[in-house]
Amino acid sequence: MTPLKPGSVIGILGGGQLGRMLSSAAAKLGFDVHIFTDEEDSPAERVSAHTTVASYDNRAALEAFAGAVHVVTTEFENIPVSTLEALEALGVAVRPSSKAVATAQDRLSEKTFFNGRGIATAPFLPIYTREDLHAGLAKLGAPAILKTRRLGYDGKGQWRLTGGDEADAAFDALNGAGAILEGLVAFEREASIILARGVGGEIAAYDLCENHHEGGILRVTRCPSSAGGTIAADAFAAAKAVADALDYVGVLAVEFFIAADGRVIANEMAPRVHNSGHWTHEGCETSQFEQQIRAVAGWPLGPTTRHFDVEMQNLIGPDSDDWERFSGENDARLTLYGKREARPGRKMGHITRLRPRAAATQG
Amino acid sequence: MTPLKPGSVIGILGGGQLGRMLSSAAAKLGFDVHIFTDEEDSPAERVSAHTTVASYDNRAALEAFAGAVHVVTTEFENIPVSTLEALEALGVAVRPSSKAVATAQDRLSEKTFFNGRGIATAPFLPIYTREDLHAGLAKLGAPAILKTRRLGYDGKGQWRLTGGDEADAAFDALNGAGAILEGLVAFEREASIILARGVGGEIAAYDLCENHHEGGILRVTRCPSSAGGTIAADAFAAAKAVADALDYVGVLAVEFFIAADGRVIANEMAPRVHNSGHWTHEGCETSQFEQQIRAVAGWPLGPTTRHFDVEMQNLIGPDSDDWERFSGENDARLTLYGKREARPGRKMGHITRLRPRAAATQG
Repeated sequence: MTPLKPGSVIGILGGGQLGRMLSSAAAKLGFDVHIFTDEEDSPAERVSAHTTVASYDNRAALEAFAGAVHVVTTEFENIPVSTLEALEALGVAVRPSSKAVATAQDRLSEKTFFNGRGIATAPFLPIYTREDLHAGLAKLGAPAILKTRRLGYDGKGQWRLTGGDEADAAFDALNGAGAILEGLVAFEREASIILARGVGGEIAAYDLCENHHEGGILRVTRCPSSAGGTIAADAFAAAKAVADALDYVGVLAVEFFIAADGRVIANEMAPRVHNSGHWTHEGCETSQFEQQIRAVAGWPLGPTTRHFDVEMQNLIGPDSDDWERFSGENDARLTLYGKREARPGRKMGHITRLRPRAAATQG
Repeated sequence: MTPLKPGSVIGILGGGQLGRMLSSAAAKLGFDVHIFTDEEDSPAERVSAHTTVASYDNRAALEAFAGAVHVVTTEFENIPVSTLEALEALGVAVRPSSKAVATAQDRLSEKTFFNGRGIATAPFLPIYTREDLHAGLAKLGAPAILKTRRLGYDGKGQWRLTGGDEADAAFDALNGAGAILEGLVAFEREASIILARGVGGEIAAYDLCENHHEGGILRVTRCPSSAGGTIAADAFAAAKAVADALDYVGVLAVEFFIAADGRVIANEMAPRVHNSGHWTHEGCETSQFEQQIRAVAGWPLGPTTRHFDVEMQNLIGPDSDDWERFSGENDARLTLYGKREARPGRKMGHITRLRPRAAATQG
């Protein structure tokens, strides 16, 4: 396929911080960006050439958007699949495709898909009824985690269950939403692979990074991971198998649990640039944001060479009130997302700290 | 002074590529940007939250702009000084100040100012009349260069004169514009210092870089310069003296001729981020663009640590037609400015190539 010329318009569904960083990366390559979001005054809108503010099922708005852009990508995985399908039917290239995004949106299809490719996951069961939940707890053992199949992120839509009473309350809280029950996995660390797959099937992956969550929200990512043995290679192989099977185009993140014995267990995937890849902006030859733009524009993928050892720290909610302190820290590179309100649990920005690469990992 | 809070609005006068890169840097720190330009569909407008398209002497537009921003800076030095003065009179902080920009805009005041601080320049004479020009040529010797005092850039408004006939034609071409005649300087190389000065007078400078021009337009910048001895220290001292004397706030570039004997001769200054500092974006801990935003927002200046040896190559006019080749070059980091037409001589983008720092210069 012919790569998109500079000056072409890249459509991005979603107006959050990922769209903001994608838009800046697209501008650096000479593209214009058109944001489609249902939010007024979004972080991405303020750095983009064009914006449509409309609901994701607004047919007229989607038709106008399709006519105004040369390719469409997404910045959040909970975009309605029907929106992506509508854009595909209108003849616009949607990258990644509606099918890939649909697979990632539903925890049941996602884990079933992982297992179908020989990729280990936590044990899980679909939950349709209260009886399913009680039977599932008996089968998988307590504690186990009830998760909505759709629309969960940053620990939302999850209940850790230790017994029957909690199960009943959590089932009521589902309020009819589809769910799965996941058995607990004993893991030593969490890690993720960020890779990109181009329109011709070529793959470029970043080094495995290690993630630390608090309260279900990513706090810190470090790269490289201290995981040894074949862990990085196993995680990469799993992520590549996922991308190939979905004929994926764009940046894909796969999060893993790493067991004490080195087994790599897939937790979830995100069909987009990912918080655990923000360190690539300062740490690598090509950032995940530029890589996503390159992939969806049909450009060659850029080198993922990592120049530094990196730690990325999220600024969540009131953390960002400390901007003045961070602004004066000599080794802290600060990124703020332009969000107007620092609500608790809201991702407001991040800090990247660079160190010379440790000699042992120097490439 | 209190540093500007994230979410504040930074006003930028001018809509070109420097404004575009400044705007992206401001967004990364959580600021909104308001571009004021007299051009429709400018490169900077397409990455900024707000834009006013109006003439620089449109009083109503300037008043509205002053009321909408928290600080004003400029991206091109030929902004009318009266515009800056009008904004200052309206009570907005203008950084750098109208006085600093005025000094840089006029080659006569600029060189007089340099000499007044003990900074060497090429010999020069003001030219008001045809007789001045002939007398000047006799005094400085041919060849010499006639330059308009104002509005010249990229070699425009300059005539290299070897004799009297050329002088008459060039004088006619001035069409009444003020001018100076400059004696030729025998130089071995051209170099520049990019530094920032904060609101409290603190200075942060980047390593001396070396510049190669063709046809009056910058083609390549390399950092570090191969200049040895006290050249880098002398150039820095001169640039710092300039910034201090002007009570300068923001990024300042000073271009030098370096003589074979190591003498440092100031050529001109630019009261803004500078083409010969583009390599700082990929090469340094803090880019010149972020540094300018930090300075004008009253934030601490960032570290100027250089992580790589860097070569920056300008893409001028039709060079940018080769975007597809550059997009696939593994060691070329590409920046395109989003300009619609690749007119000859027009700066369309640049490429940065990074190398590990040579051991001898490792800091």
